[in-house]
Parts: sequence; structure tokens; C-alpha cells
Amino acid sequence: MTPPSPAPVIDDADRARMLDGVRFDADGLIAAVAQQHDTGEVLMLAWMTREALDETLRTGQVCYYSRSRAALWRKGETSGQVQRLVEARLDCDRDAVLLLVEQTGVACHTGRRSCFFNAMRPGGLAETSAPLVAADALYGRG
Amino acid sequence: MTPPSPAPVIDDADRARMLDGVRFDADGLIAAVAQQHDTGEVLMLAWMTREALDETLRTGQVCYYSRSRAALWRKGETSGQVQRLVEARLDCDRDAVLLLVEQTGVACHTGRRSCFFNAMRPGGLAETSAPLVAADALYGRG
Repeated sequence: MTPPSPAPVIDDADRARMLDGVRFDADGLIAAVAQQHDTGEVLMLAWMTREALDETLRTGQVCYYSRSRAALWRKGETSGQVQRLVEARLDCDRDAVLLLVEQTGVACHTGRRSCFFNAMRPGGLAETSAPLVAADALYGRG
Repeated sequence: MTPPSPAPVIDDADRARMLDGVRFDADGLIAAVAQQHDTGEVLMLAWMTREALDETLRTGQVCYYSRSRAALWRKGETSGQVQRLVEARLDCDRDAVLLLVEQTGVACHTGRRSCFFNAMRPGGLAETSAPLVAADALYGRG
């Protein structure tokens, strides 16, 4: 079921037409879930503007929108932990997108593969994974 | 790596303490991604209030919050396509939650297992799966 990689080139007209059908919210955002394409691991959830999704489709490198910095966020630009797009899939009402990606290294700024490591269990949160890389090393402060 | 099912009971005090740490947005919502616990298939993205997440942890049946209806949405209450919780995992900044679930039947109101079936490809959107059930049959109008 895994689509071929890398993502094929989508021309400007096709991208524009598909992006016209995306239901961005009042702030111009859509929720994006990144999943490692072959293992199925859910890596992270972040946000995209039309510009971010367009760049992602055009370049094949995942670009989010940072709400805190109010700017495009080219994933891995600082850390090198890039995500290569394999396929983007909109949901049934086109207000969320699933990104099948090839994750280089780790997705999480804590140095873990996945951001979803805080299991809600009896007794409180339990970490389901340990960092593979020191967070400082990811951002050149190590 | 799959946690045991069904989800263990979490007592009121532990639930309250963990929910206090969740970063709901200005509207009191958190994005929730449902994933079939054993196959890794991403099924859907929806929203939860504190009350919805608390009910989900308490009952072991996934309950979302419908933004369009402004009400709790007990997944499968009408259609029978329920999601049994296996484990809920918060992300690194605790403003998104991954729900590992056992999906009965189909997650999508179109009758597909997953809501993410609109692949963005050269030429336009391409459906990656067909309905397994007629949508009308899901809601008693068949």
C-alpha cells in the first residue's frame, strides 16, 4: 500500500487546483500529521498554511507553519532532521492532511523519533521512548 | 511496541492531574489523531475538549467534540463504528494527542476505513481507497 517514493512532481496548475479545495481554518491553517511511510509510526502533528503545503508539494521537502514564530518552518533546516514527502493525503472534508514521509533522524525536538511519547496511564504520564539524540546536539548547542 | 489492550482503568485523581497538564487551545480544544493500534493505519483527525478526553480515558470508548454541533461526539453512537481506546499519548508540548484504538468497522463517514483517502498527485486528487460500507447504511438511511 506504500506509494512509490520520491513524490512525483505536481505541476503548478494541478497544485493550485487542489489547494483551492483545501478547507483552511479562519487563521488560514490546516492540521498536518506526519507519518513515517513504511513503518506507520506517527511522528508529529503541526500546522500548514496554503503557502507551506504548496512549497511541500513543489519541493518534496516538508514545510510547516510555525504558529509561535508566525513564519514558514522548513522542517530540519536547522537540525538537519528533514522530512522528505512521499505522499500528502487530504481527509474526507479536506480540513486535515496526512503526510507520508521519510524522516531523516528524529522528528521531535527532544531527540525522539516521535513527538507522541507521553502515554496517559494509571499513575500518570509514562514515557514510551527515550531520546536517540541529545536535544542540544540537534541545534548546534551541544 | 503495541501496548496491551484494553486500556487500563485510570482513577479520577490521576486523570485530573494529567488533564491539568494538557494545553488546550483558546477554544478549549486539542487535536486528536486516531490510529489503529496494530496496523498503524491513521484513521482520522478530530477534536477533543477536556471533558471529551476525560470521558475517553474513563470509559475506554473514544469521545470527541464536534465543533459543528458544539457537543460531545461519542464516536459510533449512531453508526456503531466505535473506537475502543488502547492508549492515549500526548505529544512533547502536550497540545496534541495520539489515540491508539481498536476501530470497529470503518472510521470515515464515507464508509472507508480511514478519512485520509484523497492523495494529492499529478492530475489532481486520487482516491486511495473505496468505501467498504455504503454511507447510507452506516446511519440507518440505507
